[in-house]
Amino acid sequence: MSRILRINTREKRYSFESPSPELQALGGRALTSKMILNEVPATCHPLSQFNKLIFAPGLLSGTPAANSGRLSIGAKSPLTGGIKESNTGGLVSQKLARLGIKALVLEDKPIDDAYSIIVIKKDSVEILPADDYLGTTNGDMIAKLWERFGKRVGVASIGPAGEQRLTGASIQFADPKGHPGRAAGRGGLGAVMGSKKIKAIVVDDGGADKLTLHDPDAFKAANQKWADLLRNHPVSGQGLPAYGTAVLVNVINEAGALPTQNFRSGRFEFAGDISGETLAANIEQRGGIVSEGCHPGCVIRCSQVYHDKDNNYLTSGFEYETIWAFGAHCMIKDLDDIARMDRLCDDVGVDTIETGVTIGVAMEGGLIPWGDSKAAIELLKKVGTGDPMGKIIGNGAAFTGQALGVDRVPVVKKQALPAYDPRAVKAVGVTYATTPMGADHTAGYGVCQNILNVGGTIDPLKKEHNVEISKDLQIATAAIDAAGLCLFVAFPVLDHAEGLQLIVDMLNAQYGLSLGASDVVQLGISILKDEHEFNRLAGFTAKDDRLPDMFKEVFPPHNTTWDFTDDELMKAKTF
Amino acid sequence: MSRILRINTREKRYSFESPSPELQALGGRALTSKMILNEVPATCHPLSQFNKLIFAPGLLSGTPAANSGRLSIGAKSPLTGGIKESNTGGLVSQKLARLGIKALVLEDKPIDDAYSIIVIKKDSVEILPADDYLGTTNGDMIAKLWERFGKRVGVASIGPAGEQRLTGASIQFADPKGHPGRAAGRGGLGAVMGSKKIKAIVVDDGGADKLTLHDPDAFKAANQKWADLLRNHPVSGQGLPAYGTAVLVNVINEAGALPTQNFRSGRFEFAGDISGETLAANIEQRGGIVSEGCHPGCVIRCSQVYHDKDNNYLTSGFEYETIWAFGAHCMIKDLDDIARMDRLCDDVGVDTIETGVTIGVAMEGGLIPWGDSKAAIELLKKVGTGDPMGKIIGNGAAFTGQALGVDRVPVVKKQALPAYDPRAVKAVGVTYATTPMGADHTAGYGVCQNILNVGGTIDPLKKEHNVEISKDLQIATAAIDAAGLCLFVAFPVLDHAEGLQLIVDMLNAQYGLSLGASDVVQLGISILKDEHEFNRLAGFTAKDDRLPDMFKEVFPPHNTTWDFTDDELMKAKTF
Repeated sequence: MSRILRINTREKRYSFESPSPELQALGGRALTSKMILNEVPATCHPLSQFNKLIFAPGLLSGTPAANSGRLSIGAKSPLTGGIKESNTGGLVSQKLARLGIKALVLEDKPIDDAYSIIVIKKDSVEILPADDYLGTTNGDMIAKLWERFGKRVGVASIGPAGEQRLTGASIQFADPKGHPGRAAGRGGLGAVMGSKKIKAIVVDDGGADKLTLHDPDAFKAANQKWADLLRNHPVSGQGLPAYGTAVLVNVINEAGALPTQNFRSGRFEFAGDISGETLAANIEQRGGIVSEGCHPGCVIRCSQVYHDKDNNYLTSGFEYETIWAFGAHCMIKDLDDIARMDRLCDDVGVDTIETGVTIGVAMEGGLIPWGDSKAAIELLKKVGTGDPMGKIIGNGAAFTGQALGVDRVPVVKKQALPAYDPRAVKAVGVTYATTPMGADHTAGYGVCQNILNVGGTIDPLKKEHNVEISKDLQIATAAIDAAGLCLFVAFPVLDHAEGLQLIVDMLNAQYGLSLGASDVVQLGISILKDEHEFNRLAGFTAKDDRLPDMFKEVFPPHNTTWDFTDDELMKAKTF
Repeated sequence: MSRILRINTREKRYSFESPSPELQALGGRALTSKMILNEVPATCHPLSQFNKLIFAPGLLSGTPAANSGRLSIGAKSPLTGGIKESNTGGLVSQKLARLGIKALVLEDKPIDDAYSIIVIKKDSVEILPADDYLGTTNGDMIAKLWERFGKRVGVASIGPAGEQRLTGASIQFADPKGHPGRAAGRGGLGAVMGSKKIKAIVVDDGGADKLTLHDPDAFKAANQKWADLLRNHPVSGQGLPAYGTAVLVNVINEAGALPTQNFRSGRFEFAGDISGETLAANIEQRGGIVSEGCHPGCVIRCSQVYHDKDNNYLTSGFEYETIWAFGAHCMIKDLDDIARMDRLCDDVGVDTIETGVTIGVAMEGGLIPWGDSKAAIELLKKVGTGDPMGKIIGNGAAFTGQALGVDRVPVVKKQALPAYDPRAVKAVGVTYATTPMGADHTAGYGVCQNILNVGGTIDPLKKEHNVEISKDLQIATAAIDAAGLCLFVAFPVLDHAEGLQLIVDMLNAQYGLSLGASDVVQLGISILKDEHEFNRLAGFTAKDDRLPDMFKEVFPPHNTTWDFTDDELMKAKTF
């Protein structure tokens, strides 16, 4: 039976409880957002005792379903001030699920400065002193915890940035090889974990039984078709495994939508130097791993291990968004230096999108020169130290913009925009503006129809249909996040009608239900309604659901502008 | 005829225009708030070309009316994100009025980094290069500009903090002796002036005629009674001239309402060391000036010049709020060190309330020890330099709280609370929460009825009547700010019914009108409506009109808490 594990971080006390009927059928993002709405006062300070940090495996997590090992982490965001679900791979989701833990809830906060680690096993929950680990990087944390608790344990940890409660702080997760390359990056959830003085969470499912499936044969049959579907789509089956997400560098640059020099133009002269093709060629030549999964059971395998010229480990989980943020956005063309910055972010524990955009804002403010990767690395190295400039950078783009008096700051709800210009991929722009999460491409990935011709084709430069596309994608994504599925399953699901049915078939076989496709859509809608309601209670209005004035600037090469009215955008959040 | 002077700071162009009929009858805060509402897009970035900075003398400014030399400065605030009217003494208000300038409006912003000064004379407006003045403190600016343009000119300037566009930056004004002790401190308007790259404004009314009064005899008669009224009230006629506003240190401490150690208790053990009585005794003993006006025609004369033990000038305009912020709030008991911090703030150009509260937040975050005045001075000295810690402190309390991961940050709409605890002076608490300005005691000074027994007596510890009192005071204050009168005229006006009538008599005699007292009340209401409307358009809701959770803590010695509901507070802003 699936339980909720609550830990009071002030009293160092834990308890298991049965989920209420309302929560019983929920998982992943559906569960974190419902519980945050129900239990966290929307106007509280995100670093106060009133906030909660909730880890919830998706509904399919822990089963053999391909690409179902994603974890949702929810809280009131210290970055945006609104609700946050941040989503990650790694090992924790499947292990929590196998331990029958539907949600792990961190509550209250200590009144002293002592840090703890939480160790969850089949028959025990321990809250142990973490004093020896203070200041430790995420990479070292995983190494130490794997040495102490065994190489198969799941680890979620914060680095020095989370300890300092910086609003760019991430929670990092060990990948299957023990690298800290997976992150719940967005929204500063590492700061919430830091406020509760939890340095790391260890999850060991040793001795746990396999999850019981209501109809194992039906599940197996659906999952085989499901895995084939993922393997046979050109994006999830070919592009992503071959080049990782960085396959997008050339694609988005070609489309004139790669935001360059803090969103001044859509083409970066040196895009080829930082492309997925260059990345893969470097790995082939130097050593490393071209393609691996971020969790067991992944058949897309878009992650990788990237080495330097001397074949020494540089980083892993080296994503398109990161390469763009430190690359084109900052006019940096040295892929190895970008990999070093990715590693620095993973180790100190900050979101690479937020931090890369922040470095560009620092360049906008004249702090360091455009394109100067060495200066950018030196700036990044200050994060998590006592250096006040590190505190500025680690608090993200809006904060750094204020520190430096810059008015061209690409944020929505104070969260930095990702790697697609909203004037040249307008469906994504609608998502940036209207998702309850702050600027977030994963919340409704309109790149599919705007650029990739997946799920249809919608002109990325015009307004027509882009609000509707964004809304539909936001609904579908919320449901995918609730299921614990990787977002990239959307590519085949959008192109093949049987995809959604296979997800439904697996859920029905697992839980003994008789859901239809429309139930999944309703689930997505109900999640978004919960999230918008939390933000409304926190004081958000339509004025928060818009892009900053800098996007009124004409954007080359297509010379488009951001031209949606508040009324037009309202349709993307009216259900 | 009264004109509006607009200066385009990008094109270095100016123009005079006649006010529209809607603006014709407005002055001071009524005019700045109406123009900001009409002309500034509420969602714009406050440092962008879309914001405007408006200087408007009050309706009575430039006349001989006692205490009528106050200036309103309006803009969208970079600190709060809402509308702002910041109010100051000095020489500019009366001189602009005598030049027939109803409002000076700074528009647009330069695209290069070149700074200018604006020099306004009877027959000319010049926009001159300011390169030689960059980095100059406000004290030195006034000295240099008085040397260049003559000792009688009005000066408004920004220091290095404003040049850096820090959101705690003030605009400082020369007082009659040429000290930079008068400030439009609150809301970061110095950053707006910095964004428009205006280092200083010089106003020379040499050669200007006296203002024409419609009925000089009636005006003179009313003004004589008016001046007598101010001189004969115990607060404006005795307490303030004798001890300055610091007369309140002992009064508010005695009332158990002096926020000590970042609002942990209402009594400061060393209040006597930093009291107005000590301040006055030091001046008597050392030299300096016990009592002077902040503008010509002041009969209250609550300002002063404060010297150190060796009788060297330390600071001027040394206010209660400043002494509290750097004193009790930070547990600092050395009045001379507090005076040094006041001087540092005036020179670098930051608000003393915001900055003092910020130092306390830095102490809360463990950056420096409680009560360590030397460490506080060193921290302050970083503001306006290239030091990133200076950028953190100079951006104010909310910003510093975020930088240091502190969740006990006493702000409303990101503006720091002044020197009266809202749990022990509840009418002021209602004002903090509900004024469109962010936490601001001057917007509705409930200390009158709660502590001073001026205008009646209302229990400061209970809810009853305090919403109504705050609302009435907010209306009256808005009207006083529109008239260009010093806020302290409220003491006699609240106690004597003829006070309001004398203001009306002077306005009628000046402009040839036939206003009644109810017209003044309606003016106050219309100002507040305009300001609330701007904030609504900027995205503010009732969730912004509340105190942070830290005020749920029980507050000794009276052990009260902040217990108003959103619904109760709503009444303070429903007209």
